[in-house]
Amino acid sequence: MSEKIWGGRFSEETNLDVEKFTSSLQDDIHLFKADILATKAHLHQLRDKAIVTHEEAENLEGVLDQLQKERDNGTFIPDDKLEDIHMNIEKYLTDKLGDTGKKIHTGRSRNDQVVTAFKLTILNRVDTVILLLKELLVSLINKAEQNKDVVMPGYTHLQKAQPIRASLYFLAYHEMFLRDLEKLKFFKKFLREVPLGAGALAGSPYGIDRFKIAEELNMRQPTANSLDSVADRDYVLDILYCLNSIMLHFSRLSEDMIIWTSEEFGFVKLSDAYTTGSSIMPQKKNPDVYELTRGKTGRVVGSLIGMITTLKSLPMGYNRDLQEDKHLFFEAVDTVEQVLRVNIGCLNTLEFNRELLSDKINKGYLLATDIADYLVLKGMPFREAHSVVGKIVRYCEDSHKDLVVLSYDEFRQFSDLFCDDILSKLNVFCSVDSRDSYGGTSLKSIETQIDNARLNMAENKGV
Amino acid sequence: MSEKIWGGRFSEETNLDVEKFTSSLQDDIHLFKADILATKAHLHQLRDKAIVTHEEAENLEGVLDQLQKERDNGTFIPDDKLEDIHMNIEKYLTDKLGDTGKKIHTGRSRNDQVVTAFKLTILNRVDTVILLLKELLVSLINKAEQNKDVVMPGYTHLQKAQPIRASLYFLAYHEMFLRDLEKLKFFKKFLREVPLGAGALAGSPYGIDRFKIAEELNMRQPTANSLDSVADRDYVLDILYCLNSIMLHFSRLSEDMIIWTSEEFGFVKLSDAYTTGSSIMPQKKNPDVYELTRGKTGRVVGSLIGMITTLKSLPMGYNRDLQEDKHLFFEAVDTVEQVLRVNIGCLNTLEFNRELLSDKINKGYLLATDIADYLVLKGMPFREAHSVVGKIVRYCEDSHKDLVVLSYDEFRQFSDLFCDDILSKLNVFCSVDSRDSYGGTSLKSIETQIDNARLNMAENKGV
Amino acid sequence: MSEKIWGGRFSEETNLDVEKFTSSLQDDIHLFKADILATKAHLHQLRDKAIVTHEEAENLEGVLDQLQKERDNGTFIPDDKLEDIHMNIEKYLTDKLGDTGKKIHTGRSRNDQVVTAFKLTILNRVDTVILLLKELLVSLINKAEQNKDVVMPGYTHLQKAQPIRASLYFLAYHEMFLRDLEKLKFFKKFLREVPLGAGALAGSPYGIDRFKIAEELNMRQPTANSLDSVADRDYVLDILYCLNSIMLHFSRLSEDMIIWTSEEFGFVKLSDAYTTGSSIMPQKKNPDVYELTRGKTGRVVGSLIGMITTLKSLPMGYNRDLQEDKHLFFEAVDTVEQVLRVNIGCLNTLEFNRELLSDKINKGYLLATDIADYLVLKGMPFREAHSVVGKIVRYCEDSHKDLVVLSYDEFRQFSDLFCDDILSKLNVFCSVDSRDSYGGTSLKSIETQIDNARLNMAENKGV
Amino acid sequence: MSEKIWGGRFSEETNLDVEKFTSSLQDDIHLFKADILATKAHLHQLRDKAIVTHEEAENLEGVLDQLQKERDNGTFIPDDKLEDIHMNIEKYLTDKLGDTGKKIHTGRSRNDQVVTAFKLTILNRVDTVILLLKELLVSLINKAEQNKDVVMPGYTHLQKAQPIRASLYFLAYHEMFLRDLEKLKFFKKFLREVPLGAGALAGSPYGIDRFKIAEELNMRQPTANSLDSVADRDYVLDILYCLNSIMLHFSRLSEDMIIWTSEEFGFVKLSDAYTTGSSIMPQKKNPDVYELTRGKTGRVVGSLIGMITTLKSLPMGYNRDLQEDKHLFFEAVDTVEQVLRVNIGCLNTLEFNRELLSDKINKGYLLATDIADYLVLKGMPFREAHSVVGKIVRYCEDSHKDLVVLSYDEFRQFSDLFCDDILSKLNVFCSVDSRDSYGGTSLKSIETQIDNARLNMAENKGV
Repeated sequence: MSEKIWGGRFSEETNLDVEKFTSSLQDDIHLFKADILATKAHLHQLRDKAIVTHEEAENLEGVLDQLQKERDNGTFIPDDKLEDIHMNIEKYLTDKLGDTGKKIHTGRSRNDQVVTAFKLTILNRVDTVILLLKELLVSLINKAEQNKDVVMPGYTHLQKAQPIRASLYFLAYHEMFLRDLEKLKFFKKFLREVPLGAGALAGSPYGIDRFKIAEELNMRQPTANSLDSVADRDYVLDILYCLNSIMLHFSRLSEDMIIWTSEEFGFVKLSDAYTTGSSIMPQKKNPDVYELTRGKTGRVVGSLIGMITTLKSLPMGYNRDLQEDKHLFFEAVDTVEQVLRVNIGCLNTLEFNRELLSDKINKGYLLATDIADYLVLKGMPFREAHSVVGKIVRYCEDSHKDLVVLSYDEFRQFSDLFCDDILSKLNVFCSVDSRDSYGGTSLKSIETQIDNARLNMAENKGV
Repeated sequence: MSEKIWGGRFSEETNLDVEKFTSSLQDDIHLFKADILATKAHLHQLRDKAIVTHEEAENLEGVLDQLQKERDNGTFIPDDKLEDIHMNIEKYLTDKLGDTGKKIHTGRSRNDQVVTAFKLTILNRVDTVILLLKELLVSLINKAEQNKDVVMPGYTHLQKAQPIRASLYFLAYHEMFLRDLEKLKFFKKFLREVPLGAGALAGSPYGIDRFKIAEELNMRQPTANSLDSVADRDYVLDILYCLNSIMLHFSRLSEDMIIWTSEEFGFVKLSDAYTTGSSIMPQKKNPDVYELTRGKTGRVVGSLIGMITTLKSLPMGYNRDLQEDKHLFFEAVDTVEQVLRVNIGCLNTLEFNRELLSDKINKGYLLATDIADYLVLKGMPFREAHSVVGKIVRYCEDSHKDLVVLSYDEFRQFSDLFCDDILSKLNVFCSVDSRDSYGGTSLKSIETQIDNARLNMAENKGV
Repeated sequence: MSEKIWGGRFSEETNLDVEKFTSSLQDDIHLFKADILATKAHLHQLRDKAIVTHEEAENLEGVLDQLQKERDNGTFIPDDKLEDIHMNIEKYLTDKLGDTGKKIHTGRSRNDQVVTAFKLTILNRVDTVILLLKELLVSLINKAEQNKDVVMPGYTHLQKAQPIRASLYFLAYHEMFLRDLEKLKFFKKFLREVPLGAGALAGSPYGIDRFKIAEELNMRQPTANSLDSVADRDYVLDILYCLNSIMLHFSRLSEDMIIWTSEEFGFVKLSDAYTTGSSIMPQKKNPDVYELTRGKTGRVVGSLIGMITTLKSLPMGYNRDLQEDKHLFFEAVDTVEQVLRVNIGCLNTLEFNRELLSDKINKGYLLATDIADYLVLKGMPFREAHSVVGKIVRYCEDSHKDLVVLSYDEFRQFSDLFCDDILSKLNVFCSVDSRDSYGGTSLKSIETQIDNARLNMAENKGV
Repeated sequence: MSEKIWGGRFSEETNLDVEKFTSSLQDDIHLFKADILATKAHLHQLRDKAIVTHEEAENLEGVLDQLQKERDNGTFIPDDKLEDIHMNIEKYLTDKLGDTGKKIHTGRSRNDQVVTAFKLTILNRVDTVILLLKELLVSLINKAEQNKDVVMPGYTHLQKAQPIRASLYFLAYHEMFLRDLEKLKFFKKFLREVPLGAGALAGSPYGIDRFKIAEELNMRQPTANSLDSVADRDYVLDILYCLNSIMLHFSRLSEDMIIWTSEEFGFVKLSDAYTTGSSIMPQKKNPDVYELTRGKTGRVVGSLIGMITTLKSLPMGYNRDLQEDKHLFFEAVDTVEQVLRVNIGCLNTLEFNRELLSDKINKGYLLATDIADYLVLKGMPFREAHSVVGKIVRYCEDSHKDLVVLSYDEFRQFSDLFCDDILSKLNVFCSVDSRDSYGGTSLKSIETQIDNARLNMAENKGV
């Protein structure tokens, strides 16, 4: 007969390949600490309902503490034959305390036990991500502050469009990652519903007080339905979605930085500490951090889609397929934490190539919209102004001139509305400060954005 | 020279294939109404800032109203050559009002214009989904109410586990879809930030009051950063994520129903109005609605991944790639609306096969856990009890008996702790009502769940 | 009682929402022609096995021809109430020929009928894609031929690495798309197995000769197993995989072109016919074709993932979920055809900015590896040479010099191995022609590649 | 100054987080053996071209052999600081042989080196998958052979449709997995093109004979274009696609088995060695192997989509993003190998519940199509016959009778065409053997399928 803890009814040993295949130990070892905590909360209920005596409860709690210590100092080695970390912990209790240990699983099932430990563990990891996100958000504000006086080309379609302050760029990413932060915080709502007491699927018969468990584990409330408690993995998807969003934002930031550190653009210089060289081309200084960040987006998207695929068409209730949730989650969260750490450092140490930018900014047709706006303010309908400026640009192209070197007479060839103030208007600082709508690139708008961002971060304490 | 509205600088006509390739009219025709509204709000700003006179403003507003009427009665046919619906609307104004029409695009760009109309349109569609979700949630509560007295097998691993009230099942899906509702409502927060006034990327120079625009369009506030305003598509992803979650829940519900309507299970009967037949096998009555629902999960997952793929590695600022957002969104939201409508009807008309269930429920070993719980309450440690019951089940299997027909003497062969009350405990109603923890399957727990659900729906008015 | 063709057993009418929900007409209308062809092949078997008389067969064939004509000239309007195009065709036969029409479905099922028509239709669309791919491959060879004398920077990590002939670039994409072509051709193998005669799942009882059907429909052979015939959709996935690969290649090509047409790079000029302008910035000339191509990658990835999701966990045999296959396939193949057409034109008309490239090519440190190779040939171990050149590059950076302007004396400061031939070696043409391994960038290697590519295309006739 | 092998130009040490972030050692340790082999082939070229002397070559080869031995016996511990396994191997050579070691990287780049080792490694893993697939295919044929006399219900829409021999089912999966085998074999074509000699991107200048390298490494030929050689990852995608297809097939097989081992179906019994129990419900015997197999589909789909995402929009040439390819590949191939091993064992030991099936097979309306076919052979048009049988089924439902118990008189109420032979036709063996088209479920068709399958496997030796 099988020696498995559930083996009473089985007449044949589990096949060895199957044992390895079904073991989740490699992933759920990360649930160790959370399972100890949840087991204690469960134990307190068993004691309150007199399933175990006060003395038994003390003994069990003592052994749990001892086990945690052994784990902390590396002397506890879980046994792969025992399927998962939860069985390992129960086995430890039974080995130490005999019959008393055999009582610990009363009134709970692995189904509600595992999801409780998993939710606690996810919450812990999410809080780390939140703290790193906040560090990133502050770095972005600082970068915006430091580069208020840097005017650079703004792009659409990767074509130069209008001049912007570099701060506008960093504040745009501040908005993106701020949304990620807000979503993570919102989704904690669902994570903080504790499933313990839902049993295998139908609830628990021993009068266990699920609200007390929630309180002890610092959760918001017990889950509302015992069947949903064990079948639900929405909370994993939610966090994977947020991690995915963070990576998409980083993939865009990385793309910009890779382009901006190319010799042709040359807008930005990365610190040597955040670049690497080539094994064959001695001149290379590669933005590997940004490339790897961009590339790792795939891994996190893969985790999200993997989880979606696993959930698709699954019957209600617990199905063993759900065991895959942990591998996919840890894969993604480990990646995102690493990406956040490295990117904060890389961002903090990058520098704009100010000289080059101030040379470049007056080249080309960056101020074309400003001329159109000029004509509109002189009374020309916008569409007509747009068309006139189109002709001016073509004239510049044909005669190989930049817009800023055109003379008053040349402007007059295209419209009588040009007055001599046109030459003084053709200035990038004039241009950026004219766009002073809320959220715009004028100095005033930028300073408001920075102030608001700092205020928001100050109010947004904790996780 | 090109006749395109932006054609001033171009010396060659657009290639015809390219014209078709770049046109977004088929998708953005759905933004018509929203663009009219947003154009009016913009117009009011142009009037307040004296870019257009009061008379011009009245004329423009009148023509916009007229155009909306023509669209409503089907007489306005947009011209595919004009790239998108926004150019069509501007062209209409120019055709009717000449120079006055040419003023409407002052101080805005297609970049901020399009995302404003898109956000308004998404909000509208989300509200429809929210209302349908609420209808579904009420149907689920009603089904739970109607089937409180139906006891059926609960499954884990698609193996019979413990008896549950059918209500527990419907209330589990109530929890799932309720989370979807809460997420959709949360994500409206970001949708309700209006981008108009962000210009092409850098803001607008005409003193436009973006807070007034937000107020007029019933939005929460203007977006905080002009560059993010035109580059951001997080709000599309957020909604696609929710739609995807709804479909995953439906794929699981569908799976259950397809299994339960099989001849072998036979738990549920669908109304003829919601099934179809076979072209070759006259006896077939197929659960097509559930199969198609499950199958359409793929389409919605496809939209989500499509959007993720499109966004990956995109440089900051507007890039034409983003035009794909609309097709992917409408594909998904159309599908989900249809799925919701059909599934509400199908759910409302399905019936449990009560007779069959009450026959089946006593077969097999559904009450095994109850025997273990019995032994625990008599003082046996749970693990030992679990093992004893494993042996009883094996005895039943070997002797081809159901648990419920075992005699007191047979029980006593396995443990002295069995008293004569064991026979009266072997009852499914006893079993379900013993699991009375919060969220469990006892009558009391179910009624609390129903009351809470109804209360929540009552408080959760509006969209 | 229901009037549906399968309605014999049903007592209630189908719900109207359900009718719309389950109808596949919008997608399977594209199977019209193929279904007519397959129906004829089936009819010939019914005739040969005397299920219908020769006269009946002639009548049926005549009506099928007439129907095809009506469809061609637009007078046949399928009825949405009839679920799909197959039921429409059968209804037409019955309306025209009464009892004779009712015989056509003998010995087949919609299950084998639909997949046969779908496979024929896919084959047709694949052949179009193959022809367009070939056109693209020839264009790439031509571009390589035309630009043999253009030397440009080759990049790794988007950092200038070594000089290459522009031809090498086009020939790299030739390799990529050639692989797509070979895969498509290979996958036709599975498409050309005809399912007709597999019935609903178990085969057909009327002595139908499936090999004759295969021959008549120009298929390779009948499918080998009747159950697999109706359950299998691997052939859809295979083609979606190829379409996805084509799009990934285009997304990379587009990325290059978008970067190369930026003002900062400026390597390439697109024809006006393949670019568009801005609604607000008159100077803009945007590479929209490449942006949209890159963006549409999402749509095709979405179709692939959608199909994967739909297939996941589907029980063996036909399930209605499979109906989704057509929508996902047409969505993808329509996109890819359009992308191919537009990109061939765009590629054919783009031009390198030769003057700019020949200026730029001598800037910076492109020839660093050549110096290392020089030192190796003088006897220095490669790693040491690599390190020496690293120091030279740093010296250049510190003294703001390009490599090509260094004097002999300056070189000698870094190694005694430098002889006076070093100055003559510092030449991009020298550099490219030194890399003459098979597949390399030397003129000889390029010409071999072009010859091989042309030869391969010449041998690779047909589809 | 940095001590990195490429550090010549760098003035600052790499940040420690970055070092960990950029290291690929955990994944590319699996490329160890392949890199040794490829390095030897490269070395032979250096020797033939007199870049190293014969003596140096012998020394280098000797040290490589020694290193392989140290790796085999576990004494070689790679240093994580050296970024990847390739740098570790080069460092070992340099440590042992000084200047001679520094010559090994002459004429190659990590770009061509890594992809060569990766392709060799993939080929090795693919061959293992191929051998396991063949083992599975033989098991499926054996199961088909063993169960020729088992008649069971065939399903469409998970509704009983027509009786089939159980063999038909196993042969259907034989077809599915056979396609996977054929695809894997086809894709080896591209894997067997060796990139070594392509250099960083532009080719190699030392006269290296790439055809000789191909021959030595048992590859088909060198890659045709040096730029494509380092940028291409199609071959990873191809294999991921095949692995994904294998998993989709297993997800369907698993779904069937999970349903068939439910108490309600009960068609199949799994060996105790391949099932597990419950921690709380002693009666449970769960099909965990099939659930985990189905669940792990997500992980493999995730790898495929991850790789697609990583490749999307990547500029031509090598980019560091590509480093992610190895993690995604090993994750998928490890999973699939494990799934194959466990599933072969599980399949070999499962048994049909023959008694139960022979009881069940006559229940219900499985023979409805046979009655319709009967009427057609008596001269009734198929559609009419279909309708008549629909009415018979409804009559059976209303009077709670199975089809097989209807009397001759009862049949006559529905049509005069019924003769007394109808009763003898109502037999499942009659039914299955009537469907004798190629690929059908008749005994003759099944035996042909088995013979063909065995013949094909016999001819399909090797990998």
